Amino acid sequence: MVIVMKHHASAEEIGRVVARIQELGFKAHLSSGEERTIIGIIGDERGLELDNFLMFDGVERAMRVLHPFKLASRDFHPEDTVIRINGIVVGSKSIPIIAGPCSIESRAQLMESAHAVKEAGAKMLRGGAFKPRTSPYSFQGMGLKGLELLREAREVYGLPTVTEVMSPGDVPLVEQYADVLQVGARNMQNFALLNAVGETQAPVLLKRGMMSTIEELVMAAEYILSKGNPRVMLCERGIRTYETMTRNTFDVNAIPVLKSLTHLPVIADPSHGTGKWELVTPIARSAVAAGADGLIIEVHPNPAQALSDGAQSLKPEKFAELVIQVRKIAEALGRTI
Amino acid sequence: MVIVMKHHASAEEIGRVVARIQELGFKAHLSSGEERTIIGIIGDERGLELDNFLMFDGVERAMRVLHPFKLASRDFHPEDTVIRINGIVVGSKSIPIIAGPCSIESRAQLMESAHAVKEAGAKMLRGGAFKPRTSPYSFQGMGLKGLELLREAREVYGLPTVTEVMSPGDVPLVEQYADVLQVGARNMQNFALLNAVGETQAPVLLKRGMMSTIEELVMAAEYILSKGNPRVMLCERGIRTYETMTRNTFDVNAIPVLKSLTHLPVIADPSHGTGKWELVTPIARSAVAAGADGLIIEVHPNPAQALSDGAQSLKPEKFAELVIQVRKIAEALGRTI
Amino acid sequence: MVIVMKHHASAEEIGRVVARIQELGFKAHLSSGEERTIIGIIGDERGLELDNFLMFDGVERAMRVLHPFKLASRDFHPEDTVIRINGIVVGSKSIPIIAGPCSIESRAQLMESAHAVKEAGAKMLRGGAFKPRTSPYSFQGMGLKGLELLREAREVYGLPTVTEVMSPGDVPLVEQYADVLQVGARNMQNFALLNAVGETQAPVLLKRGMMSTIEELVMAAEYILSKGNPRVMLCERGIRTYETMTRNTFDVNAIPVLKSLTHLPVIADPSHGTGKWELVTPIARSAVAAGADGLIIEVHPNPAQALSDGAQSLKPEKFAELVIQVRKIAEALGRTI
Amino acid sequence: MVIVMKHHASAEEIGRVVARIQELGFKAHLSSGEERTIIGIIGDERGLELDNFLMFDGVERAMRVLHPFKLASRDFHPEDTVIRINGIVVGSKSIPIIAGPCSIESRAQLMESAHAVKEAGAKMLRGGAFKPRTSPYSFQGMGLKGLELLREAREVYGLPTVTEVMSPGDVPLVEQYADVLQVGARNMQNFALLNAVGETQAPVLLKRGMMSTIEELVMAAEYILSKGNPRVMLCERGIRTYETMTRNTFDVNAIPVLKSLTHLPVIADPSHGTGKWELVTPIARSAVAAGADGLIIEVHPNPAQALSDGAQSLKPEKFAELVIQVRKIAEALGRTI
Repeated sequence: MVIVMKHHASAEEIGRVVARIQELGFKAHLSSGEERTIIGIIGDERGLELDNFLMFDGVERAMRVLHPFKLASRDFHPEDTVIRINGIVVGSKSIPIIAGPCSIESRAQLMESAHAVKEAGAKMLRGGAFKPRTSPYSFQGMGLKGLELLREAREVYGLPTVTEVMSPGDVPLVEQYADVLQVGARNMQNFALLNAVGETQAPVLLKRGMMSTIEELVMAAEYILSKGNPRVMLCERGIRTYETMTRNTFDVNAIPVLKSLTHLPVIADPSHGTGKWELVTPIARSAVAAGADGLIIEVHPNPAQALSDGAQSLKPEKFAELVIQVRKIAEALGRTI
Repeated sequence: MVIVMKHHASAEEIGRVVARIQELGFKAHLSSGEERTIIGIIGDERGLELDNFLMFDGVERAMRVLHPFKLASRDFHPEDTVIRINGIVVGSKSIPIIAGPCSIESRAQLMESAHAVKEAGAKMLRGGAFKPRTSPYSFQGMGLKGLELLREAREVYGLPTVTEVMSPGDVPLVEQYADVLQVGARNMQNFALLNAVGETQAPVLLKRGMMSTIEELVMAAEYILSKGNPRVMLCERGIRTYETMTRNTFDVNAIPVLKSLTHLPVIADPSHGTGKWELVTPIARSAVAAGADGLIIEVHPNPAQALSDGAQSLKPEKFAELVIQVRKIAEALGRTI
Repeated sequence: MVIVMKHHASAEEIGRVVARIQELGFKAHLSSGEERTIIGIIGDERGLELDNFLMFDGVERAMRVLHPFKLASRDFHPEDTVIRINGIVVGSKSIPIIAGPCSIESRAQLMESAHAVKEAGAKMLRGGAFKPRTSPYSFQGMGLKGLELLREAREVYGLPTVTEVMSPGDVPLVEQYADVLQVGARNMQNFALLNAVGETQAPVLLKRGMMSTIEELVMAAEYILSKGNPRVMLCERGIRTYETMTRNTFDVNAIPVLKSLTHLPVIADPSHGTGKWELVTPIARSAVAAGADGLIIEVHPNPAQALSDGAQSLKPEKFAELVIQVRKIAEALGRTI
Repeated sequence: MVIVMKHHASAEEIGRVVARIQELGFKAHLSSGEERTIIGIIGDERGLELDNFLMFDGVERAMRVLHPFKLASRDFHPEDTVIRINGIVVGSKSIPIIAGPCSIESRAQLMESAHAVKEAGAKMLRGGAFKPRTSPYSFQGMGLKGLELLREAREVYGLPTVTEVMSPGDVPLVEQYADVLQVGARNMQNFALLNAVGETQAPVLLKRGMMSTIEELVMAAEYILSKGNPRVMLCERGIRTYETMTRNTFDVNAIPVLKSLTHLPVIADPSHGTGKWELVTPIARSAVAAGADGLIIEVHPNPAQALSDGAQSLKPEKFAELVIQVRKIAEALGRTI
């Protein structure tokens, strides 16, 4: 940490900051410039509260030098994390596509979706049983019945499954029915939930909050890792900006940034990242071109009657076309779908 | 809802949208302009998925006409909601100030804070026992021990208390120890938690998510109201923007907007709304001038050693000065502190 | 400036950075932590390009220590700047209100506005002759004819006038007709224009860009000051965020931040800061409560027929009510209107 | 336009809005729902001020139905605009790369850059002579001398050139020296400048403002088109968001959105879109995968000594590698570089 003193900070003010640093077991390192004195703190700053130093008289600013994460950091774990899920490999040369409906709505809808996405080349099936909805008057998901259908679809089509868990109390249940636990964007900083999935050994698909920074996403992963579960996949799904023409702004920059900061696989969600089905295929291509390790795509047999996210869901034939196009991009980079 | 058809939408495309509207039990109302046909949907659109109409061929856009909330709306409940909490009244002429430390850290720290804020004129005591922290390596709160201290402080000083609940499973516990359940910014769309506090009759302080729109805040309140708990206070606590000079951007506009849209009391949190103690007093004044019904302020006997939020905590003497200044603003508006 | 080296930066890499710092005439100051070496640069960093250091092998980050402005900084000019404009004083105990129509539309409209705002207590008259409009199909202002009307209104009512200048070539013209040159939000980083108004001695009302940080606003003022014109008023007029319920988010935090960073007067524009006339009065109150040195308010005799900004313009009787309310807040703070 | 009346709007209030619509020469179309009456306005709404209707008693909201642009719209001009610049074609199957230094700094620097980018496969040369800089203390560009060097480089290497023009008065000068006039992000709504470049017949590279919406970008193009210059290229260069890990957030969604809304070529600028040289190549790949018609890339022979934008400039050998990678993506889509 670096502490910048104010223009006319007194020797006494500087002395009190230094004393406090030493009291906390760190070393202080002074550097007196023309206009400001700056104080470097030597030691692992991750345990320090930056805020506290701002309260000393004469302090103008405090800046962290280190990223606050450690287990998720490539500095301490240089090689890529590879996650195996019932024969599917994530974080390696191949780029698996996860596809399926936003919500599980009926047996027929799920089976039809599973059949279609498998035919087209998807490697995992997604489908929500517990749905976080902005309105209490919207469809909230089928719950347990949906989980049962998801397990059935897995057995019939042999596709590992991904589904969202919304509450710490539901983790044991969902874990029984699905292969991957999804933590949704609105729950990215639901720390009780992060701790609960961190206590399992199930693979976790952790979605970036719609207004979370890249660093906060990695810190949310750090929660899970620090509880003992190393099988975390990060998911870029678009962020909230002032732009209204799209539902979210897909932050394609986050893909190479995350690949450089961490060793965890990075999945892209162009369905939420755009909110419009016409944009899903070009943004899927762009995510793979930027280095994504996987895609998650909403597919519905009849989007005009979907109970959620109809506008961003692809019809099966559009999804098949997406897979063809994305495969070409993957191959241009020496990867496979 | 209004559906805007594309420039060259065919009569057949228009017909299919109309047929679907009628199938859903609504009436369609066509209006053919020079460049576009628009279709109005007559009926309570709150049960409709806007998304679905975007999937029809020939549709360009769909726009909601109504706000999606009803129970929270002033249209359906014109008079102000007044909440009584052990003798303190929120939502009326007087403007109660809630104050205390971010985290409960020790018996001495809490008692000293409670004493100081009561002396200065605060009407309720805040203090966190369960703390949502970005880093798993930061202090996570004292938990049950903290709740016990909070109850003790209430008994000693006679101040009703506010504390955060982070998980649906903790609601019954927290309800036993505190007077007001706080739902934190990061949990504003934790729907399992909203449902859980909605099933109590405890007053709820619902903080706006740092990434949430005003409408989403009101929809989160709607979840609680729709479960049967009418005692909701909304809290503006700053939003995330591109500005980096302050921790958050306090959205003072939200205060009169919320007062106009809803009948619920609006509390302002200038501590989180700025992130810097020097700014807390001017922004507290500005919030009251804009019409806030209450304030929540972080106060710590020794901010430089606080385990969380030190930079935005006021020392007791600064808090006493804040109360004096805010009182003058309240009186200028014919209100009291 | 502080340069943070990567985790495993070599001694040679560190040496090359140090050599470059010395070559540029600065001193380097090393501080070797457990995980990172950091290098402090001693000297006035304002002339350095932070970017260049990021290109050296082994460098992770570079952070500025000093604010990049000097003439606008309170560090170097502790006392408030007071600007006198034909008998009106800005930056002192009294809080002048500037009011008038968004655009000058006709002689009758301007005179009626000037009469009404003067009666209600405004101290200066605003009115646009050159209008920056998003659409080329919208009314673009009356141009020279508008300036002539503005001069006439000044003579008749004795109010100093404020009007926008959009192009460096127009500065000499506008200067002849108006007392204060306004640089609009969209032109805050039109550096050719900043230089042109900096070469005059006319007072400048510099509006914050809707996309600009507080620091960038101060740097724009620094352009004007560095050209020799010290008479700059800063104006907070709302920033663009993800919130759609209001046209802009009025950044009330910026008022005390600017008062602390700089010595220049700070004017608030609640008309643009909200975009809705119903919100103008509460936000005007809140701006004054936060410490604003002046207000600029859009007033139109018939907003429903205004050629621009109708939705945020007050009718004269609403403006008179605003002045009454704002005066109470000012008096509560020991100031006057 | 659609006008939504308030819940209890009276027949008289509705009547006054209808009367005003008719007075303006439009037809009104009423649709009475259960909770609200909505009024459709039939006619070309582009000439109407939406704001004015918000001032009528009983009106809740007004929403536009049409996009406000016409000349730039694909609705009215379905085929792609193709721009020819001294033998280079933009807006067709091939994807030209524009490359060169941020600022022209010296004859040697520009010649070396031009040589390197041509060798690597660039089709046009960029280089700034007039530089918009946040600080008045930063290098402001070589001005006329820079333009002369740019013309010389064009003659020597046969590359058409792109350079920024910052002021309406400079347009005639810059037009003599360069092939493409660039309007920078900070000037996207400098309407005097848009009009000035619209009055030439020179190709214009129009950069999106860092906090401008897609619609505002298209409206800025509409200014140029409406003045009679049809040769406009739109440039996505990243937008400002709350994310601080990158300088800007490259809005890759904007590429397919712009291709669908307008007929103008879309160029991507991954240098400004990321602000970090390590990210330029993956984001260049992603932009082409999303459908960009061209790229503009900052290349400098010695970024560590660049006078501007060093952190995002590629060394020539990195640029050559970028071209190789981007070519593979282009070919996967059936296009060429």
